[in-house]
Amino acid sequence: MASQWVELRDLKFILHEVFNIGEEFLGKGKFADHDVDMVNMVLDQAAKFTENDIAPTYPDEVQRKPVEAVFKDGKVYVPEAYKKIYQLYCEGGWMTVSDSPEVGGQGFPALIAAACAQMFLAGNQAFLMYPGLTHGAARLVEDHFQHPLRETILEKMYTGVWAGTMCLTEPGAGSDVGALKSTAKKNADGTYSITGTKCFISAGDHNLTENIIHPVLARIEGDPAGTKGISIFVVPKIRINPDGSLGEPNDVNCGGIESKMGIHGNSTCTLNFGENGKCIGWLMGEERQGMPIMFQMMNEERQGVGTMGVALSTSAYLHALSYAKERLQGVNIMQMKDPNAKQCPIIQHPDVRRMLLKMKSITDAIRILALYCYYAMDKKAAATDDAEKNKWEGIIEMYTPLVKSFCTDMGDVVTNLAVQTYGGYGFCREYPVEQMMRDNKINTIYEGTNGIQALDLLGRKLGMKKGLYFMNMLGETAAQVAKAKTNDNLKAEAEIVEKALNACAGTAMQFSQLIKTNPFIPLIAAWDYLNCLSEAICGWFHIWMANVATEKLAAGPIEQDKMFYTGKIEGAKFFINRITALVPAKLETLTKDEISCVRIPEEAFAV
Amino acid sequence: MASQWVELRDLKFILHEVFNIGEEFLGKGKFADHDVDMVNMVLDQAAKFTENDIAPTYPDEVQRKPVEAVFKDGKVYVPEAYKKIYQLYCEGGWMTVSDSPEVGGQGFPALIAAACAQMFLAGNQAFLMYPGLTHGAARLVEDHFQHPLRETILEKMYTGVWAGTMCLTEPGAGSDVGALKSTAKKNADGTYSITGTKCFISAGDHNLTENIIHPVLARIEGDPAGTKGISIFVVPKIRINPDGSLGEPNDVNCGGIESKMGIHGNSTCTLNFGENGKCIGWLMGEERQGMPIMFQMMNEERQGVGTMGVALSTSAYLHALSYAKERLQGVNIMQMKDPNAKQCPIIQHPDVRRMLLKMKSITDAIRILALYCYYAMDKKAAATDDAEKNKWEGIIEMYTPLVKSFCTDMGDVVTNLAVQTYGGYGFCREYPVEQMMRDNKINTIYEGTNGIQALDLLGRKLGMKKGLYFMNMLGETAAQVAKAKTNDNLKAEAEIVEKALNACAGTAMQFSQLIKTNPFIPLIAAWDYLNCLSEAICGWFHIWMANVATEKLAAGPIEQDKMFYTGKIEGAKFFINRITALVPAKLETLTKDEISCVRIPEEAFAV
Repeated sequence: MASQWVELRDLKFILHEVFNIGEEFLGKGKFADHDVDMVNMVLDQAAKFTENDIAPTYPDEVQRKPVEAVFKDGKVYVPEAYKKIYQLYCEGGWMTVSDSPEVGGQGFPALIAAACAQMFLAGNQAFLMYPGLTHGAARLVEDHFQHPLRETILEKMYTGVWAGTMCLTEPGAGSDVGALKSTAKKNADGTYSITGTKCFISAGDHNLTENIIHPVLARIEGDPAGTKGISIFVVPKIRINPDGSLGEPNDVNCGGIESKMGIHGNSTCTLNFGENGKCIGWLMGEERQGMPIMFQMMNEERQGVGTMGVALSTSAYLHALSYAKERLQGVNIMQMKDPNAKQCPIIQHPDVRRMLLKMKSITDAIRILALYCYYAMDKKAAATDDAEKNKWEGIIEMYTPLVKSFCTDMGDVVTNLAVQTYGGYGFCREYPVEQMMRDNKINTIYEGTNGIQALDLLGRKLGMKKGLYFMNMLGETAAQVAKAKTNDNLKAEAEIVEKALNACAGTAMQFSQLIKTNPFIPLIAAWDYLNCLSEAICGWFHIWMANVATEKLAAGPIEQDKMFYTGKIEGAKFFINRITALVPAKLETLTKDEISCVRIPEEAFAV
Repeated sequence: MASQWVELRDLKFILHEVFNIGEEFLGKGKFADHDVDMVNMVLDQAAKFTENDIAPTYPDEVQRKPVEAVFKDGKVYVPEAYKKIYQLYCEGGWMTVSDSPEVGGQGFPALIAAACAQMFLAGNQAFLMYPGLTHGAARLVEDHFQHPLRETILEKMYTGVWAGTMCLTEPGAGSDVGALKSTAKKNADGTYSITGTKCFISAGDHNLTENIIHPVLARIEGDPAGTKGISIFVVPKIRINPDGSLGEPNDVNCGGIESKMGIHGNSTCTLNFGENGKCIGWLMGEERQGMPIMFQMMNEERQGVGTMGVALSTSAYLHALSYAKERLQGVNIMQMKDPNAKQCPIIQHPDVRRMLLKMKSITDAIRILALYCYYAMDKKAAATDDAEKNKWEGIIEMYTPLVKSFCTDMGDVVTNLAVQTYGGYGFCREYPVEQMMRDNKINTIYEGTNGIQALDLLGRKLGMKKGLYFMNMLGETAAQVAKAKTNDNLKAEAEIVEKALNACAGTAMQFSQLIKTNPFIPLIAAWDYLNCLSEAICGWFHIWMANVATEKLAAGPIEQDKMFYTGKIEGAKFFINRITALVPAKLETLTKDEISCVRIPEEAFAV
């Protein structure tokens, strides 16, 4: 019986059989002490932890009572069940799977922590955001905080004794970060007095830990307007004494939490800093370096959010699949004329199979898309020369907006299809798929809306290094496409993928001209272009996986593996023939001089 | 300031300027006493009622307290605010806008009631389902119930003193109606004793009315299995004495209500009939005629559900538009290099405009798509010869699955985009768009899932009368396409629409062959084909509207109308160039011998 939460076999397939981490990374350089067995042990444990401990805390309604973060008398309380899994998470060392042994980590490749996160997030995204943001904030402290308390803070955060956040958004400054109003005033002792209100702060306050470390974006008095004048500060919820013990509260107060569509277990807080003039922060990095420092965490979180889309797609698909195998309704189409035909499981109906294979083939594609970025991080870390390092840095830059945007938009598609597969039951809270659909919706929004990702791709990434990064990205696809072309069973699909990738390159060239003459054409097309590129690239990932599956099948594997590899090939065929195949036609519509949405007067949208 | 709930100007445009009901229907035949002013008065009143009374009851959470139907001690309570609007709805005569004066109705064309319903549903779908189902059940009683109490029941239902439902689904019989287990046993006095459990019964029990009339599908003892043996019964919640007064409870008990993703104000009930052997029903129509009678209501409800998709798209779009005009964030792209540029409303950003015009052009399309079916009903009712009647009957048959499926799937798309337009605020319950997204999801499921609609189109409708209905449907599009081709500003779009419609016809021909040789190809393609046909047909509707707008613009209208007509033309261009244009490429993928989702072994979906 397959799990309803994690696809462990798929993760191992990607890591070992597609990315071949045993040859690529393990036993070498900083991974000299790691081997395949250790990796598999970690993955197995993560799967068990997800199934046995995290997933049972998933429902945000139990017996019609909401299970949610609660704000009462100025304090925030997480769902009671989170306390135990938070403790298990910290004790299990899950916070630092891929972090350096110097900070207490286990030093695995980034891929391993990412694979674990795909599982944990599937079990309960709202919960995992508490340790997830803690880890992200700790990484900033590790890289940018120079202060006698650095070691103390790091140790407390990486062990989960203290938590972390990212305090960026303000009521008037969401996508437009430069408009923020929070201020910092330098004190005689070198600290800063922080004042301002931040909103939508995920895991912004809670009772999981005794202290919370807030990286806070603010403008030092007198610094220029816009993003250039922004600095970033370490602001603890409770002050920290020079010996590392906790002191007085630091005038960081939760003004309330949002009532949301989903992720009810996570506290989305409004935080008031320095209402009483007593909020003290320490500068992180240099003055006015807030944006690049913040973006280090933001880029990591964007990978993380893409992973959330993958995780929810996985659990939604697996639930729908399990339901479709059990639910009896109607008769098999081949027995329609038999009056004595028995009801069959709905998985036998062609349209249900279409929905299931669509879910599977999308989920398979975005899983490897999200993991490929971590693969690139590991490749970059393992690179021995600058050219190689630069190449993988470019891959990370190019893929980040795709991972954040496409994985989460596809999360909407897959969770919606899962609800549809359940029929009326899918709309009921008795089953978890409606919650997965609600939970995923935030993933298309936070850490830069998907529209922002599209502008990042189009306005920054495509032209980086005069297009070299983009060319490298496409260049990496050549070998597997060429290999598939020599296989009669995949030749047609390889050609579709090649055509789609070429069309993406061609459109990018057209855009680079149009941006000078009629910039609105590419600007309007940005989101659709990001999707086209993702659909072409995911076609390539499918080809790659199908190439591996073809070789493995030729070796005559055991029955279960035979089924697994067959599923990979059929999924590739579905995705490429139904989705990637449409990319050239879609791109054609995007380069037409069709700017009705710019031309239309504002008054004409509705009267 | 445009409304955030209703697009009154758009409804009048379709009724008067596109469908030209003044010439077509009003003042003639059974509409001899109706004129344009009366229609506009009704529409104006409906808009006001929606804005002032219905919409304020919309939120399903107020100050963090749920507003929902509640089940307590065996009884169901609707949200308190529903009582007043239910009373206003009944007193206002809204139940019977287009019903015959013989039953107390106002006798307007069906289009008028449909236009009002689009507005009311936008104001609160969960509420409107109570009177909506009452009306549908009353129509069945009117057409099929022969009994001394018929007049009494009709009068009580059409005035809203008693309510109605449709009791079809059972826990083991959803899409597979023939599997139902409810039974009826004929008594000596001609009544039937009913036993069985029904689930997912919308508005199944509540405290809005003193009685509820349930049409119940059940099998008379000894009748054959499957759909052929099903009969339908009138089963009151409270027994009715021969003089029309209420008697004892009729052993119809609510076993509970569902906790759902959305439409929290509507009670989705499990109903137990005859638990104590004391549930009495009267036969409706003849024995074993349950399915065709039920389908009369089902087909009307399918139009109604499509209308729900239109309604939620409208209110979601209008809210997003209003927000986009107010929310300041970032600077206008043309001022990017100006350090003193002020923040602009987000409607000025190209990607936001793309989302808005996508929402608008889809909503405009599905609005007229849904109304066209009612137009066909009025044309059929007004037809003076059988050929004409038959033609419009064919149009209704062809369009019903498109209306139910495409309008609601697009409801998912538009409500999702509305959430996205709000950014983080869209995910918060403080704003209504997240609720609209949750509410709409049921519309793709109930009254026949959209997958069922696609099979209805492909398996039944395309081949009806040897394809004549389908040919008629396409034939109706010719005149407006030809007219647009003579207009330089619409010629390119008209050609795209023509090409898409021709491709739909061609694919249908291919399917009719394939269904004999490789039936899985069309069966797998059914849902996508329904969407392609809808996207092509909606292109035609846009052409039709743009033709009208072009003529009106030429006449030099007042400024507000100029904006309105300009919006119609730009919306048409966006929809046709971005959506209809892709239809031929999509259809091409559907006719390929690509049946991976049938070929894949069940065990290969996940291991």
